[in-house]
Amino acid sequence: TVSDWVNSQAVLADHLNIQQWAAVIGGSLGGMQAMQWAISFPEKQRHVLIIAAAPKLSAQNIAFNEVARTAIKSDPDFHEGHYADYNAIPRQGLGLARMLGHITYLSDAAMGEKFGRELRYDAIQYGYDVDFQIESYLRYQSETFVEHFDANTYLLMTKALDYFDPAQEFGHDLAKTLASIQAKCLVVSFTSDWRFSPERSHEIVNALLSTGKEVTYAEIEAHQGHDAFLMPIPRYHEIFNSYMQRIAAECGAVA
Amino acid sequence: TVSDWVNSQAVLADHLNIQQWAAVIGGSLGGMQAMQWAISFPEKQRHVLIIAAAPKLSAQNIAFNEVARTAIKSDPDFHEGHYADYNAIPRQGLGLARMLGHITYLSDAAMGEKFGRELRYDAIQYGYDVDFQIESYLRYQSETFVEHFDANTYLLMTKALDYFDPAQEFGHDLAKTLASIQAKCLVVSFTSDWRFSPERSHEIVNALLSTGKEVTYAEIEAHQGHDAFLMPIPRYHEIFNSYMQRIAAECGAVA
Repeated sequence: TVSDWVNSQAVLADHLNIQQWAAVIGGSLGGMQAMQWAISFPEKQRHVLIIAAAPKLSAQNIAFNEVARTAIKSDPDFHEGHYADYNAIPRQGLGLARMLGHITYLSDAAMGEKFGRELRYDAIQYGYDVDFQIESYLRYQSETFVEHFDANTYLLMTKALDYFDPAQEFGHDLAKTLASIQAKCLVVSFTSDWRFSPERSHEIVNALLSTGKEVTYAEIEAHQGHDAFLMPIPRYHEIFNSYMQRIAAECGAVA
Repeated sequence: TVSDWVNSQAVLADHLNIQQWAAVIGGSLGGMQAMQWAISFPEKQRHVLIIAAAPKLSAQNIAFNEVARTAIKSDPDFHEGHYADYNAIPRQGLGLARMLGHITYLSDAAMGEKFGRELRYDAIQYGYDVDFQIESYLRYQSETFVEHFDANTYLLMTKALDYFDPAQEFGHDLAKTLASIQAKCLVVSFTSDWRFSPERSHEIVNALLSTGKEVTYAEIEAHQGHDAFLMPIPRYHEIFNSYMQRIAAECGAVA
């Protein structure tokens, strides 16, 4: 789970004799880890940057993950997870999971802009093979992905996402959950991100504000969907950069 | 394709000696057929009711369909479509397609309301099986679906959806495409429908208005997503009902 990961990161930090981070930063599942750091180890960081994340997945998010997992598990090459023993990779299932993931990371507008209804060949083929560029793109993405990503890891990561719900231990009260946080926070969201929409970031911001935390919130106008947090969007990078300079200045002043 | 279907329906109508329909009505893919009727046979209906439809699929729509088709085709029981000869059904692939379809027919809000993060059992299982109610619901939906729906038909229908684009023959000018329509039109959309969003209905309405057609437009507040067009939503049924009464009155007056 996310808190297992954060605990093991904390063990490593202790081993390296790091007393306190200037900032813990993460996007998406990484943003959840950053949030978990601030909850589990309130004194271990000065700042937390939570980018394109949510305090927990919605039923729709879980549903998409479940489709991806079902695709992987029902691949005949999955062998109950022991595919390595059979020298196999569940390519079809993992590829399907990636195709689906890719759609949810992008926005309808971004896909429309990039591909529209452009055809792969000159005319419609009237078969069940590729007609539109978007289909060809998704197939290519899934084929390259299966060479570089492990199916069991995909299952594990989606379950970690599904399980993340730090407020559960606090009677589902997010404000109470975040009340112990000592770090100052920057929360960033992207307008066309429908996987972790701005509304989900508002939940985090509102909970932090309601317990009097110092929080900065930036909602970035972007058409790239969830993927925007990986993109060189000028306003996003400016805000990130200026916040990092503030952290550097604060740490410099203390040191 | 949609226009093949409409042509064959028109042949049947001729055979039955039906000169003119009082109204051609359809929702979703049916709404596309209703639109095609009005385009292909302008004099064959007095009214057209286009519900929860779009003038063509977006790249995102096509992408979801492509994932569904890939799931079906990569099922080992698909046998290149000749599964009946092998006494088989591509259950896994068809079930996956249905799970995915189901997610896109609902809204995030509707799924959240119905299932939220409710657990199937008392506690998280920490396995790759069902944890959340939404997962169990999707599995059940997909299992019952594969008993009643044919995989080749699913492939065919999604391709018909992808190919629908009547404006293509008119230089991608929707107003020009709809210019020959003689029917009066009712267009209905639903606020939380993200598969065929209200914006897509606006395209139809605007094109009709720009060529001076008589068009009534209703945007129904509904949280059920695309599925709303099948639901007993009071305002939706009132509007539908009063429009049908208007048609009845007009037809009665003429007869």
